[in-house]
Amino acid sequence: GFPCKNPAWVQANDFSFSGLHNPGNTGNQFGSAATLVNVAQIPGLNTLGISMARIDYAPWGIVAPHYHPRATEILTVIEGSLEVGFVTSNPDNRLFSKILQKGDVFVFPVGLVHFQRNIGHMNAVAISGLSSQNPGVSTIANVVFGSKPEISTDILAKAFQIDKNIVQQIQWRF
Amino acid sequence: GFPCKNPAWVQANDFSFSGLHNPGNTGNQFGSAATLVNVAQIPGLNTLGISMARIDYAPWGIVAPHYHPRATEILTVIEGSLEVGFVTSNPDNRLFSKILQKGDVFVFPVGLVHFQRNIGHMNAVAISGLSSQNPGVSTIANVVFGSKPEISTDILAKAFQIDKNIVQQIQWRF
Amino acid sequence: GFPCKNPAWVQANDFSFSGLHNPGNTGNQFGSAATLVNVAQIPGLNTLGISMARIDYAPWGIVAPHYHPRATEILTVIEGSLEVGFVTSNPDNRLFSKILQKGDVFVFPVGLVHFQRNIGHMNAVAISGLSSQNPGVSTIANVVFGSKPEISTDILAKAFQIDKNIVQQIQWRF
Amino acid sequence: GFPCKNPAWVQANDFSFSGLHNPGNTGNQFGSAATLVNVAQIPGLNTLGISMARIDYAPWGIVAPHYHPRATEILTVIEGSLEVGFVTSNPDNRLFSKILQKGDVFVFPVGLVHFQRNIGHMNAVAISGLSSQNPGVSTIANVVFGSKPEISTDILAKAFQIDKNIVQQIQWRF
Amino acid sequence: GFPCKNPAWVQANDFSFSGLHNPGNTGNQFGSAATLVNVAQIPGLNTLGISMARIDYAPWGIVAPHYHPRATEILTVIEGSLEVGFVTSNPDNRLFSKILQKGDVFVFPVGLVHFQRNIGHMNAVAISGLSSQNPGVSTIANVVFGSKPEISTDILAKAFQIDKNIVQQIQWRF
Amino acid sequence: GFPCKNPAWVQANDFSFSGLHNPGNTGNQFGSAATLVNVAQIPGLNTLGISMARIDYAPWGIVAPHYHPRATEILTVIEGSLEVGFVTSNPDNRLFSKILQKGDVFVFPVGLVHFQRNIGHMNAVAISGLSSQNPGVSTIANVVFGSKPEISTDILAKAFQIDKNIVQQIQWRF
Repeated sequence: GFPCKNPAWVQANDFSFSGLHNPGNTGNQFGSAATLVNVAQIPGLNTLGISMARIDYAPWGIVAPHYHPRATEILTVIEGSLEVGFVTSNPDNRLFSKILQKGDVFVFPVGLVHFQRNIGHMNAVAISGLSSQNPGVSTIANVVFGSKPEISTDILAKAFQIDKNIVQQIQWRF
Repeated sequence: GFPCKNPAWVQANDFSFSGLHNPGNTGNQFGSAATLVNVAQIPGLNTLGISMARIDYAPWGIVAPHYHPRATEILTVIEGSLEVGFVTSNPDNRLFSKILQKGDVFVFPVGLVHFQRNIGHMNAVAISGLSSQNPGVSTIANVVFGSKPEISTDILAKAFQIDKNIVQQIQWRF
Repeated sequence: GFPCKNPAWVQANDFSFSGLHNPGNTGNQFGSAATLVNVAQIPGLNTLGISMARIDYAPWGIVAPHYHPRATEILTVIEGSLEVGFVTSNPDNRLFSKILQKGDVFVFPVGLVHFQRNIGHMNAVAISGLSSQNPGVSTIANVVFGSKPEISTDILAKAFQIDKNIVQQIQWRF
Repeated sequence: GFPCKNPAWVQANDFSFSGLHNPGNTGNQFGSAATLVNVAQIPGLNTLGISMARIDYAPWGIVAPHYHPRATEILTVIEGSLEVGFVTSNPDNRLFSKILQKGDVFVFPVGLVHFQRNIGHMNAVAISGLSSQNPGVSTIANVVFGSKPEISTDILAKAFQIDKNIVQQIQWRF
Repeated sequence: GFPCKNPAWVQANDFSFSGLHNPGNTGNQFGSAATLVNVAQIPGLNTLGISMARIDYAPWGIVAPHYHPRATEILTVIEGSLEVGFVTSNPDNRLFSKILQKGDVFVFPVGLVHFQRNIGHMNAVAISGLSSQNPGVSTIANVVFGSKPEISTDILAKAFQIDKNIVQQIQWRF
Repeated sequence: GFPCKNPAWVQANDFSFSGLHNPGNTGNQFGSAATLVNVAQIPGLNTLGISMARIDYAPWGIVAPHYHPRATEILTVIEGSLEVGFVTSNPDNRLFSKILQKGDVFVFPVGLVHFQRNIGHMNAVAISGLSSQNPGVSTIANVVFGSKPEISTDILAKAFQIDKNIVQQIQWRF
C-alpha cells in the first residue's frame, strides 16, 4: 500500500474537497459525467476504505456498463429518474434492475458490471458512496475496445462472435 | 457474522430502498435527524462494507458529538452551510474542523468523535457514505448519560469532574 | 458469509477433488474450457481464500476477456504457448501483455479484465491459483450481451457506439 | 500503513519492552494510570494486530469512560475488585456491567464506550490485550471537553442539554 | 465463520470468564500449564479478533516449541524469569531469544514457532494476549509425533534424519 | 507492509516469471525440491494475496512436515502418486491424509503442519497455489533443530522427551 503522512503535518484540508455541487459536463457521447472524490482528491482517505462520487446525466444519458474492481457502490438519486441494473457473474448472468425515482437507493455489489440510464426529459443527478478509498472504474467498452495498445482484433472478433470489421469500427470509437 | 440469503431467492428489492429524499423530522432538542440506510434496510448489503445516510438540520441544529464504532464517514453538503469537526484520540485530542458550503466534502475517520452544526438560517441537508454495512452510531450524551441501566453517578461525576447533581440533571435529559 | 461445518464431521474428502488431469471439452465457439476447483467442489476451502483452475485451449482457442470480481489469478503454462494480457482501469486502460511459453507464470490482478489465446498449432494447458475460495467469473460478452433478462438494446448501442442491429446480432449469440 | 523495517536489521529488542510490573502513578483526579505497550513501544508489532496494557487503580479510582477506535480489549484483574461496564451503540445504549474479582476476565468490544472502577479499599491492577498494534484511546471527557482547539460551547451546551456555564466549567478542567 | 447470537439474548456473562488467577497444574512432563480464554470460553469474543491466556511454569518447566496458526502472541511475565524465543521461517531460521524478568513483554509473531522456559527456582507466571478469538495451538511434538492416526514412521525418519527406532520412541511418548 | 511501485514504471515483466517447467534438483536427503514463485520473484504480486509453487519428488522422496505461517495451500498432482496429509492443532491433532493420483487436488489449511511423499517408482510433480504473496515456509526440522543460533538442547530434550544426545544428533544434521 501507500505510506501514511506524518501526523504532525496533517491539516483539516487533508480531509476535505470542494465542488461536488457543480454539475459535470455531460456534453459527450454518453450524456453523463462522473466526479470522483477518492484518495487522489482527499489524501486523508488513505487506508479508510471509502470514497464518494457525483454522477450527472443529460436526458437519456447513460453511464455505460462498468464495474469497480475494489468497491461496492451505494447510489441515491438526487434529481430525476434512473433505470439501473447490475449483472451477476457466470453461469447465471442474472440482471437485477429497477427504475429509481428521487430518493431511491440502490446497491451495486463489488466487481459486478452495472449501468444507469436517465429515463426522463430532465437532467438527473446521483450521489454514490464506494467501499474503497481507491475503487477503480473499468468501463467495459474502454477496457475491451479502447485499451492502449489494443487487444488483437482476432481475439475480440472471436470473443464477441462478430466480424473483425465491426470490432475495428468499435475500436475506432474508443 | 450473519449467514447469507439463498442466492436463488434474491431479488432486485434486496438491493434497494426508497424515501431518502424525504426530510427527517428535526423537531427535537438537537434540531437534526439522521435517516440511515444500512443492512437493516437493505439486506443485500450483507458483507459488502458500505452504507448511506441522509442528515437534516434545522437552522442552528446540531448533530451532537458521536462516532461510528465500525466505519469512516464521508459527507457532502447538499443544501446549506455546516460547521463540522472531529477530534483525534489521546493524547493530542486535536480538533480538525471546517466550515462547509454546498458541494463540500469532509471525512470523519473511523471511530473518531465528530459533530456537525447548521450555521445558517435555512435548513441544511447532507448525504454520507459509511464504510460498513452496519456502522453503528454511539452518541456521546446518550451512551454516557442515557444508558440503560445508568452508569453510576459517582463514576460520571469523577469522569467529568462535576457535581453529582449536575450528572443527574444531564441523566434526566437522556 | 457461509457457516462452517461441524468439525467433528469433517473428513479428508472435504479437502479434496479428483480429475484435474482431464482435458476440458474445447469443442465450442471459443476453443477453450475452464475446470474450476473452488468452494463449490471442495467445501473445506470455506473461509480459506484460495481456489484452483485448469484451462484447456484448442489451437488458436481463446479464453475471452473476463475478470474475477473477488480474486487475483496466477497462471502457469503446462503445455503450449499462450498470448495473455490484462487491461488496467480508467483512465489509462493500459494493456499489459506477454507471450508465455511452457513454464512461464503470469499474474492477473484482482478485478482487471484479462484474456488468453493459444498461439500454437497444438493444444495448450494452464493451471491457475486464485485468491478466493469463490472468485467468480464475469465473462464480458456473456455479462453484457447475454444477461437474463437482457440489458436494453438502446443502452448497449450507446455504450459501444454501434447500431442497435449489431447489438442484437451479438445478443443473439449469447 | 507504515513501511516495515529491513529484516536484516531486526533484533530481539524490536520485539520486547520492560517495566510492565511497575505500578503507574495514580496520583491524579481519576486515581488511575494506564501503561500502554503498543507499536510505539515495540516496533516489531507493526502489522501484527495486537498490543497490551497495564492499568493501576487507587482505591475507588476510575478509568473514565473511553473507547478504542480500532481495538477490542480483553482485561483480567490481577489484584483487587473492579466494577466494569460497556455501553452499546444507538438506539439501545444497553449497559453491560459486572463486578470483577481477581482472576476474572471481561471483554470490551471494539469501539464501545467502557469504564472501570476500583470498588475496594486496596490498589487494584489489571492487564489487557488489545486487538490492534495501534488501538488508540479516546477518553470521552478529554475528547469532548478538552480538545485543542475547543469545540464551541454552544454545540456542547445543546449536545448535553446543559447551560453554557456548566460546559465551560467542565472545559476548564480538561 | 460462525453465526452470531441474537443480540436480544446477549448478557454480560457472554463477555466474561472467571478463574484466571488460579495456577494451572504443572505436574506433567513439561512442568507447565496453559489456561486459554478464547471464544470457546467467552462467546462474546466471536468476530472480535482477540483472546487471552495464563501460563504457569514449575521451576525449569518449559512450554515446548509450538505456534499459533491464526494469532500473534504478546506475553508479559507476572512472576519469575523466563527464557523465550521464536524462530523465523526458511531459509534463515533465525532464533530471536531473550531472558525476560518480571514486567518484561515479548512478542511472538503470527505462525512462528516459539517456546518459553522458566530459568529460576521458583514458579513463574505469564499472561498473554493473542490476536484471534480462536488462535489455535500447534505443539510441534504433539502434531508431528502424536497425531491421530500417526504420520508414517518412514516419513518422520527421513524428515528428521533419524532411525525409525527413535521415531517410534518419540511417538510412544505422544 | 511494503510500499507499491510507481504505477508509471510498471511493466508486464513485473507480473511474470519463467522456468516453472524445469524440474527442481531432488538430489538431497529428502528427495524433493520446491520452486517458489512469490512476491520476491514477481514484484507485481505485492498486496494481491496469492503465489505459486512447483514441487518435484524423486521416487519415495518427501516434502518434510512444514507449514506456511500466512497461507493456505491448494495442490494438484501433475505427475505421479503422492501420499499427503495435514494435522490439526491441539488438542485433537487429527491427521487428515489421502493418496493422490494425477489430477487430484488437496487443500492444506493455513498454518497447519503438512507433508507429501512420492509413493511411486517414478518422479512426481505437483503445482500449488498459496493464499499470500509471501506465504513463508517453516520446515519443522529446520526450525526446531536447525535454527541459528540453536535452541538449547535441554529445552528440546524435554520438549520431545528424548536424550540430549539424540537432540544433538538431529541438530548436527540441520
